[in-house]
Amino acid sequence: MEFPSELIEEAVKEISKLPGIGKKTALRLALHLLKEQEATTENLSAALIRLRKETKYCGTCHVISHTTDCTCRTISRDLSVICVVVDTPDLLAIRSTGQYQGMFHVLGGVISPIEGIGPENLHIDSLVERINASAGEVKEVILALSATMEGDTTCFYLSRKLEKTGVKITTIARGIPVGGELEYADEVTLGRSIVTRTNYTSGHI
Amino acid sequence: MEFPSELIEEAVKEISKLPGIGKKTALRLALHLLKEQEATTENLSAALIRLRKETKYCGTCHVISHTTDCTCRTISRDLSVICVVVDTPDLLAIRSTGQYQGMFHVLGGVISPIEGIGPENLHIDSLVERINASAGEVKEVILALSATMEGDTTCFYLSRKLEKTGVKITTIARGIPVGGELEYADEVTLGRSIVTRTNYTSGHI
Ligand SMILES: [Zn+2]
Ligand SMILES: [Zn+2]
Repeated sequence: MEFPSELIEEAVKEISKLPGIGKKTALRLALHLLKEQEATTENLSAALIRLRKETKYCGTCHVISHTTDCTCRTISRDLSVICVVVDTPDLLAIRSTGQYQGMFHVLGGVISPIEGIGPENLHIDSLVERINASAGEVKEVILALSATMEGDTTCFYLSRKLEKTGVKITTIARGIPVGGELEYADEVTLGRSIVTRTNYTSGHI
Repeated sequence: MEFPSELIEEAVKEISKLPGIGKKTALRLALHLLKEQEATTENLSAALIRLRKETKYCGTCHVISHTTDCTCRTISRDLSVICVVVDTPDLLAIRSTGQYQGMFHVLGGVISPIEGIGPENLHIDSLVERINASAGEVKEVILALSATMEGDTTCFYLSRKLEKTGVKITTIARGIPVGGELEYADEVTLGRSIVTRTNYTSGHI
């Protein structure tokens, strides 16, 4: 596509770097911004810059925050349980079910030999340290990963790693369709899968 | 949805103001930016701000530009024909067919009583002035609007307005499926519809 203005061309180039946004959508978004008040674009740009520059990650649970202090202990009503998730969208999805009041731990990904992601690239050691440091306060770890092959592999690895800590290891019930992404599950299914969580067994039932 | 950080919340709020982007997609885009280099976000924000603040519209043809000087006369190889389009995406689509070398005129919308858009809200008077000012140089006006009810209404109105100027009025051939949006037509169909354009008749054939 040939653009009537280098400003449009540049904007379309940058917008279409976002995942799932092609050139046509990028152009539509750019033209939309041109029709809106200047403040719309200013607020959007400022929010993106602030997000990128000021976002911090908790050193303990690796949850996104605007502070490096861990808010897990102050926010959570149940300090005896840690829910392990891959990333922030899963954490938000579980929190919005209203069925879980415990702490979280963000892994930052799943073990995936194809994508070159090994256990050493994930926040696994810090999870073990965290449990050990709790001196018995943490009694249960819920593995809330997607029901995919990578998710299962990661659960298996985690269960081995956590064995020595003595905590109870559970997984969210597979009410989620097998092969489905946790992030897209509806709230009711996801809430129920937390309530009916079962003891983790590495063999497929 | 409850967010772990006001920075995320703010970014999602602003991103999801864009058309066709919901909260979940906005969150996905925000998290993507967090994982990329800071420069990605900086370049995106800067491009949007530049686009919004520096974009100008030609006073003659209303095409988006980085200058208020009309580039139509310098860019076009055929100054005897003006192609009337609703907005920039349509202009780009027609230009990229390679079948049209004439000038353009951007209406800025279509007549739509439901949305409260009347002829006075569109760049119609300036089209008439432009043709009259050309002192006979402009010999043909191609109406390249979508084959929708609003498009047809606008064509009808334009044909009446342009009658007195004495120019030949044509429309792109309806190779485009009736009811379809011009913007999404493929290049071949669109190119052919320009080549086989017909004299405008207000009655449906
Ligand atoms: Zn924390
Ligand atoms: Zn112009």
